[in-house]
Formats: sequence, structure tokens, C-alpha cells
Amino acid sequence: MKRREFIKSAGLSAVGTGLLLNANQSVAAKPEFNWKMVTTWPKNFPVLGTNANYLAKTIQQMSGGRIRIKVYGANELVPAFEAFDAVSRGTAQMGHGAAYYWKGKSETTQFFSAIPFGMTGQEVNGWLYHGGGMALWEELYDRFNLVPAATGNTGVQMAGWFRNDINSVADLKGLKMRIPGLGGEVLKRAGGTPVNLPGGEVFTSLQSGAIDATEWIGPYNDLAFGLYKAAKNYYYPGWHEPGSTLETFINKDAFNELPADLQAIVKNACKAANMDMLSEFTAKNNTALNTLVNQHQVHVKALPDDVLIKLHALSNEVVQEVVAKDVFSQKVYASYSDFQQQVMRWSNISEYAFMRARGLGA
Amino acid sequence: MKRREFIKSAGLSAVGTGLLLNANQSVAAKPEFNWKMVTTWPKNFPVLGTNANYLAKTIQQMSGGRIRIKVYGANELVPAFEAFDAVSRGTAQMGHGAAYYWKGKSETTQFFSAIPFGMTGQEVNGWLYHGGGMALWEELYDRFNLVPAATGNTGVQMAGWFRNDINSVADLKGLKMRIPGLGGEVLKRAGGTPVNLPGGEVFTSLQSGAIDATEWIGPYNDLAFGLYKAAKNYYYPGWHEPGSTLETFINKDAFNELPADLQAIVKNACKAANMDMLSEFTAKNNTALNTLVNQHQVHVKALPDDVLIKLHALSNEVVQEVVAKDVFSQKVYASYSDFQQQVMRWSNISEYAFMRARGLGA
Repeated sequence: MKRREFIKSAGLSAVGTGLLLNANQSVAAKPEFNWKMVTTWPKNFPVLGTNANYLAKTIQQMSGGRIRIKVYGANELVPAFEAFDAVSRGTAQMGHGAAYYWKGKSETTQFFSAIPFGMTGQEVNGWLYHGGGMALWEELYDRFNLVPAATGNTGVQMAGWFRNDINSVADLKGLKMRIPGLGGEVLKRAGGTPVNLPGGEVFTSLQSGAIDATEWIGPYNDLAFGLYKAAKNYYYPGWHEPGSTLETFINKDAFNELPADLQAIVKNACKAANMDMLSEFTAKNNTALNTLVNQHQVHVKALPDDVLIKLHALSNEVVQEVVAKDVFSQKVYASYSDFQQQVMRWSNISEYAFMRARGLGA
Repeated sequence: MKRREFIKSAGLSAVGTGLLLNANQSVAAKPEFNWKMVTTWPKNFPVLGTNANYLAKTIQQMSGGRIRIKVYGANELVPAFEAFDAVSRGTAQMGHGAAYYWKGKSETTQFFSAIPFGMTGQEVNGWLYHGGGMALWEELYDRFNLVPAATGNTGVQMAGWFRNDINSVADLKGLKMRIPGLGGEVLKRAGGTPVNLPGGEVFTSLQSGAIDATEWIGPYNDLAFGLYKAAKNYYYPGWHEPGSTLETFINKDAFNELPADLQAIVKNACKAANMDMLSEFTAKNNTALNTLVNQHQVHVKALPDDVLIKLHALSNEVVQEVVAKDVFSQKVYASYSDFQQQVMRWSNISEYAFMRARGLGA
């Protein structure tokens, strides 16, 4: 087919002078794509929800408006935890959340969000983009008619807010703590009682003493949530979520309908949003940490080493049991774990050794 | 102007059915942009040069071919260190390099690549994207008719390859080391002799003993360069380059000629490439480190604490002297340094504390 015929068959004819239409440009003759993005966050939730807005805006800008995306907060179109199914069946074209929310679909999803004592944000992005991780994630989500993309990272979170001090492993016994997922299972094995509470009940439960502790995210979100008013002991590090990946999941049919340039725009917008979120958390957490300490008299404390060693050992047990349950989890774990063992050696002499060196004599 | 008239005036007429042309889509009627990208790297240089290729490809894909970018290695169109001027005057539309190469234009450029004992990659991206850094960089490059974009990060580099052990500050005296920039100035104040050598002479000089040591990048590039054949002591951490930012600089007139969607594509492609490079270095450095240690009997060693403390103190002196020279450097330093002081407190209880915790009992 000659160029002119191609242009005609695409429904366009060139008129006038100075026009250099070619096959690539004929894409503009396609109709617009009006997409819905459902999210697992309250509308405009700091960083997590606003990152979804940023993603939608970036896609619209780069596509010159050829893709329009309306972002829905949790419960606006579907409840938070129905986002995965809604996008899978095409009620919405995109979703924004975190993969461990879908462990009811597959335990393996947890490797694509956070693993206790697992990889940091920088390490996990190395695995996803250059260590085989994304291909495994795509293989998993393909079963659900979805295309995944890493779209953000929280960085290392905080261990949480505690009404009382944690001085030893014994202090974990009987501890009632709001901590979901694998972290909760680890606490249980340490003798504690993990509690699942909706976000709206966390603050009052901690304040009343119905729970002894809660994890949330990090200084910026925790400050906004007001948790410092309910407990003053703020422990680090977030051993249970050392670099949680946020995700976009796209209905596969909707994705396949996009021409190649718009597919590239959607994928790279997610990658840019991934960079943006960790940068935003890094910038805002440090400011918020200052505010918590200086204006709200929060006591920032390290979990004792023996507690961390115990939690690490229990985490290994818990992860191994997840992996034992299904074959695909074993495949993903092998990839994740091999990468982690190797990257830790590098991180130890690069990021870790430098941060240590920078603090010497200070 | 009505839609149909707008479409006609843009040189297109819709024919057939099922077409929903609108104002945004008329952009496809513009001619192509044929751009040249000059780089400071040899063509296809691992990670640094291939990232330039990745960037060009991403922009082409996302624009559906409306922007075509031809990437030139160093000396193909202009010598490496003339890339800045070449893009400034419009000989090429884009350049790919590192800002500290342009310190002859302005000492301030160094804050946008690497500062000894400065911020890590994750921290510096927090500063650039959410701490005011990019706006300052844009202000600086605007003087040169350029638009800058952060386009990659090496992560923490290695301190370098040494023929002999470094056991104390005294071992730095008389040390002839290939180490350019601020790091070289710091070594000089420690009693060493910084040497500037073109890349092509580094290996033979180290092998012959004409120099005692050289820094380069990190395991992946250093392995490819074969430096382990010339010296066996591989020291960490890279105190002089703790998270070097790579850059794109775009001719401002060329950038302003782009419609808004293509401007967004160029900027976000750089942001995605920024994410991609650090991920690639993280993944490849760990594999290469293994190869160096297990196949080439390299001795990986930590610089002693007293050496690091001395280098840190000297680095502060050197940076202060750079800053004292010009008013704009003072402004940038104030922003960089305020952010660093604050973010270090956060990094210490997040990334650093977690990596420490993960290594306990191991």
C-alpha cells in the first residue's frame, strides 16, 4: 500500500501544502480513549492518591488529550478492594493500588509490593526493571486479564506508633497491633495479636488503648493522620515494609486497543510516576519528621537489635510458608530472593557504606 | 472558530465515518522534528551511553515517530566536552552528559551532578523533583539557552582501584591518583597528587605504576574496563561521588518549538530514563561485583574510618571555597545543604537503619 493510499484508507486526505503526513501520524485520526481509573485510596490521599492524579495528568499531557482519564477515589465507583476485579472485567480501564491487597487472588502478589526484611525501593526497582521481576509480574497478572506497571514506592516505612516502649522480644508478647499482611503474621508468631482495622478506626482504637500499637506509612502520612496525638513512641525501621511498590493495573483488552505510541506513553508515565513518588516521600518525610519531633514531642526510637533479629527469623519462616503453597510463588521467590542476596552485597558497600561514612565523626 | 473550520485550517479534512478529530489531534499535522543528540560518552558506552539510546528510543516511541532523534557518541559530531556549547548554539537540539563537566561555565553546575559527601541518588532526586532543585538548575541553564533534565543516576560509586593498601591518612600522602573534579581537590589537600588522564590512558598508567590509583565508576563499568588487571585493591565507598546525576540539556529554542504534548513527552522520557539508569546500575553492579571477586580475585576493602573522616572534613572546605566564589552557587548550596541536613535524619532512620537491621545476625 502506497503512502497516499494508506492515508486515505486511514480516513484522512492531505490538503494544502507543507504537510508531511506519514503512517505514524495517521494515529491521530483515531477516536479518543475515555478511561476510568479506580484507586484503593481515598480521593486525593496524600502522595498515594495524588500520585494517581499525577499519573492521569501525565498521560493526558503526553497524549495531547487523546487519552482522558477520570480518577475515582475508593468507593466512588467501586469499593477499594474491588478495584482489581473491576479493572479485570473492564468496568474501569485502569486501577491504582498495591499488589499485596490482592493476595486473596494469589499469594504471589505480595512479592510485587513488599516482603518483610525484603528489598528496598532502589533494589526492588533494579529487580523489576533489570532483574526479571516485571516479566514475572506480567505473567501473574495476565491470568487476570491485566497488565501491571510499577508506579511508585514508599521507601522504607516506619515500624509504627506504640503506646509503650519495646525493650525486648518479651514486649511483643500480648501486643495488640494493627498490622496487616505478612507483618501481622510475623507479629503473631512473636506472641502478639495482629488486628485488622479499617483506616477510620485506627486513631480512636490507639487512643483508647483498644490496641497498643499501629503501623501506618511514614512521617508525612502519619503526621497528616494525627497518630502522634494517640501515642508518642515512634519506632523505626519499618522491617515489615522496606520499600513498598505501588502499582497500576490496566485492563488488557483496553491496553491492546491502544496504538503503540499510546501504549508507550502509558507505560513510561507509570515509570516516571514511580520515580516521582519515591522522590516525594523522600522530600516530605524528612520535613514531617522534623515537625513531629520539634512541634509534637514525638519520641523517635530504634527497635532493639534482638527484636529485629527475632522478627527477621520469623519473617523468613512466614515467607517460606507462603512460597510452599504454590508453584508460581516458588518461581517468583527464587528470582526475588536470588536478586536480593546478590544486591545486598552491593548495597552494603555502596548506599549503606556511604551513609555510614557520612555519619562518622558527626 | 468552529471545529470543522479549525480542522480545515490545520490542513486536514475528515472523510468517512467514525472519525472524531478534535483540536488536540490536529498536532499530528505538524511536520516531524528531526533532532540530534550529542553525548559525552563513547557511542553505546555501557549504561551511560546506552541510556542516551534508551532516551531517544522512548521519545520516538511515545511521539509515534513525530520526534526522531539521532544519537551521536563523543567526537562523532563534536568532541565530548563541546556538547554543552553545541546544544547551546543549536548545532544539536539535545545533549546527554553530567553537569560537572561544565564547571568551566559555572562552578554551580557541580551541585547538579555530584558533591563529595553529598546526597545519595534517592536523596538528590527528592531535592530535584520535590525540594526546589530542578527550578534552580533551570535558572542556571537558562543563561546558556538550555533546558536541563535529570536523566539518570549512578548510585554510590566505588572509591577506586589502588595498587597498595590504604591503612591511614598517611597513605594518602604522595598518592598519585586519577581523580578529577572536587574529589581531586580533596585528595590534593590530603597530600596526594590528583592526575587528570583521558579514559584511554587510565589502564596503562595504572598498570605501569605511573599512577598509584584511579577511580572510575562502579563494578559494572570497571569490570568492562578491565581495571582489575592493573590493580587488585578495590576500595569503597565512593565518598567523592555518592549519587552522580546524569543530565539531558535541550536547546531552549528547539524545546519551545515543540507543542505541549511533545514537551511533556521529552520531559517525562527523561524522568523515566532517570528511574531506568539507577535500576540498571543497581542490577548490573551486583552481578559484576560477584564476577570481580569470584573470577578475578579482587580484594574489596573499606576505606578506614579515620581516612573517611579526614576526607569529609577536607570536602567541606573545598565545597565552601567553591560556594564563596559566586552568588548563585551560594543560593544553590543553601538549598542543597538545607535539604541534605534534613534528609539525612530521615535516611538514617529509614534506608540506613533498615539495611543495618537486615544485616544483623547474618
